[in-house]
Amino acid sequence: MIEIKPERLLATLEALRNIGRCGTGVHRPALTPADLEARLWLRARLAELGFDARLDRFGTVLGRTPGDAPAILIGSHTDTVPQGGWLDGALGAAYALEIATARAEALGTTAARVDVVSFQDEEGTFVPLLGSRAFIGEITEPELFAEVQALDGRRLGEALAVEPIRAQPILRLDTSRTLAFLEGHIEQGPRLEAQNLPVGIVTAIVGIRRFHFAIEGRADHAGTTPMGLRRDAGAAALRLAVAILDRLNAGRGSDTVWNIGHVTLRPGTANVVPAAAEFIVEVRDVEEKLLDTLEAAIRERAAADAFATGLPITVERTAAIPATMMTPRLANAFALSAAAMGAGSMRLSSGAGHDAMMLARRVPTGMLFVPSIGGRSHHVSEDTRTEDIITGAQIMAGAVDLLLAA
Amino acid sequence: MIEIKPERLLATLEALRNIGRCGTGVHRPALTPADLEARLWLRARLAELGFDARLDRFGTVLGRTPGDAPAILIGSHTDTVPQGGWLDGALGAAYALEIATARAEALGTTAARVDVVSFQDEEGTFVPLLGSRAFIGEITEPELFAEVQALDGRRLGEALAVEPIRAQPILRLDTSRTLAFLEGHIEQGPRLEAQNLPVGIVTAIVGIRRFHFAIEGRADHAGTTPMGLRRDAGAAALRLAVAILDRLNAGRGSDTVWNIGHVTLRPGTANVVPAAAEFIVEVRDVEEKLLDTLEAAIRERAAADAFATGLPITVERTAAIPATMMTPRLANAFALSAAAMGAGSMRLSSGAGHDAMMLARRVPTGMLFVPSIGGRSHHVSEDTRTEDIITGAQIMAGAVDLLLAA
Repeated sequence: MIEIKPERLLATLEALRNIGRCGTGVHRPALTPADLEARLWLRARLAELGFDARLDRFGTVLGRTPGDAPAILIGSHTDTVPQGGWLDGALGAAYALEIATARAEALGTTAARVDVVSFQDEEGTFVPLLGSRAFIGEITEPELFAEVQALDGRRLGEALAVEPIRAQPILRLDTSRTLAFLEGHIEQGPRLEAQNLPVGIVTAIVGIRRFHFAIEGRADHAGTTPMGLRRDAGAAALRLAVAILDRLNAGRGSDTVWNIGHVTLRPGTANVVPAAAEFIVEVRDVEEKLLDTLEAAIRERAAADAFATGLPITVERTAAIPATMMTPRLANAFALSAAAMGAGSMRLSSGAGHDAMMLARRVPTGMLFVPSIGGRSHHVSEDTRTEDIITGAQIMAGAVDLLLAA
Repeated sequence: MIEIKPERLLATLEALRNIGRCGTGVHRPALTPADLEARLWLRARLAELGFDARLDRFGTVLGRTPGDAPAILIGSHTDTVPQGGWLDGALGAAYALEIATARAEALGTTAARVDVVSFQDEEGTFVPLLGSRAFIGEITEPELFAEVQALDGRRLGEALAVEPIRAQPILRLDTSRTLAFLEGHIEQGPRLEAQNLPVGIVTAIVGIRRFHFAIEGRADHAGTTPMGLRRDAGAAALRLAVAILDRLNAGRGSDTVWNIGHVTLRPGTANVVPAAAEFIVEVRDVEEKLLDTLEAAIRERAAADAFATGLPITVERTAAIPATMMTPRLANAFALSAAAMGAGSMRLSSGAGHDAMMLARRVPTGMLFVPSIGGRSHHVSEDTRTEDIITGAQIMAGAVDLLLAA
């Protein structure tokens, strides 16, 4: 059994935290100087280990055990949202580096048989999952996205035109070498904390469907126009939105979540009947069939409201990310490893997207979660108890042992 | 019976339309060069008539029949909303000029016994009803509002620091002289057109209450946070807003109108549970008691929702403009005048605010509406049939005859 060194793992996490530090959190959006510094730091550690360590065209870091023996790929991402937390993807990258280091120390570098990765722009500063999409071959031309602009005004084309990535090739997944992909991550939700468990074993990553509703009415003076003569897009939108919340609640599965995070009425002033209204509904579940049923229900309701109000209502599906199943054999390895060290664990689905969604399209993939204190995420206050951080790394290291010994 | 001249009235309206013309409409917000040009134009016409014609500190134009005989004050405002209609307040100013001119021609200038007014900034580019508020003595220090900023960036203090108003005094209502105030205006709604009537006699101007609702929740990841653990300010706001629409509908009087014209969810993105929500409810009715009842009902509902959801909900009353009754004797004079010339009329309330609200606090006040085609208002497409424009002026002139003869 390979032993990881908790102090070294925590030192790695502290080192990454100090690159782009922002109070208790980190500001390290994709392709900022801090992001590239963190990637160069990770590449340097992997090179010191004797690994074949590279940065690719997008800034994805890949460190491979020397030689051609099949290996397990471990990692996540080191970019953050603006003013983000210190763990998020950095935790998974630190787990990978620690397990690689521990195995190289124990077995010799060429026998470590783990490759370490930190994908670029998981957070979607430019393009969500950019690095892992490219790594599995779904993005081949950086130029296609050159004009994509970040909220801070940078264009991807310019952000990619820097040393040392400017002239690098895109690194690709080698499916003949890579036995599996394992990703450690914070839960970003409150379930593990509520159960007081140190780790969660991900069974699936939810599918996401996003719908944009637009209702057309007519702007009228809100004092002089009798109620019966209005074409009030705002009232219609509010009523439809609430009806959709009710339908989703009535049709929900045990893990279904949904959100109406955006509503706009135009012109948006107190004394003008809204001429137009928009809102966005997002629904997530691991079952595609349930998502189909819920989608049909909300479309049916929108059509009924359009008929009843006489107002044109359009429903556009702006995103449909399919649910991704994790590989049961890898989940079982996590469970066995946890049990072997007497740690509690639970199976759960991931409500957020991860690089594992991309890797699962090509190789067996597993994810391990550690608890998020208060469920907080994407915020400088994001944190995980030190003992949970360590336990998670030990369980992942044990699972790697089991898988490579088999 | 004094006869007005339709061609001259229409020429006045065309002349005003050409000052700040904007397609079929007019762009003449308060204290813009176009607004001041229209006011100087009106003052020049009144001076030509032999009236004591002045522009005051705010740009309000007042033209008085020479001498101290009691007179009826007639008028409205010549400022417009941005890209507004050609009639709105200009109609009332044109009626006043036409009636004064017709009376001066028929009776001699000193026997005309009508004063003509165009108040400044009825539309609230800076301060709603600024001119009429000042005229009745409710604003005495222009400096108090110097920092008020228009949407186009101008500050009132700077806008007032121009010739020829810079050094003028504020003109005040002389209640010993002014027998009554009469205001002609477009309806800005569809009721007269629906009844195919040329004029409406205003019985009251609605009271307006405006409420700002704010709900506090907690921003959470909309994928990773189970539904039962959220503090969703957005869903709470949507449900409360719809409940308020239902309560207002259930408790409405025959003339009650309401509007939710503004909703904001923050941070406002599809995948974040809203941490905060705001919306604005506006209710109008001519009965203060009914407004009290409706206000109590929506406050009660907000309190119930705050208890049920556990989320803090604040309700702030941001405006409470009392209902204003028009003077029955003046309404009767309009009705008699209309009947004498065989024109149909109806009594109605005004759902919009007018300078008459201010004048009614000091002197008997009456308002006459002409139809708005399609109910349109505050838009370049605003219009009224020519025959209705003329009929309205004739009816008002006849009412002035009746009142001054009595």
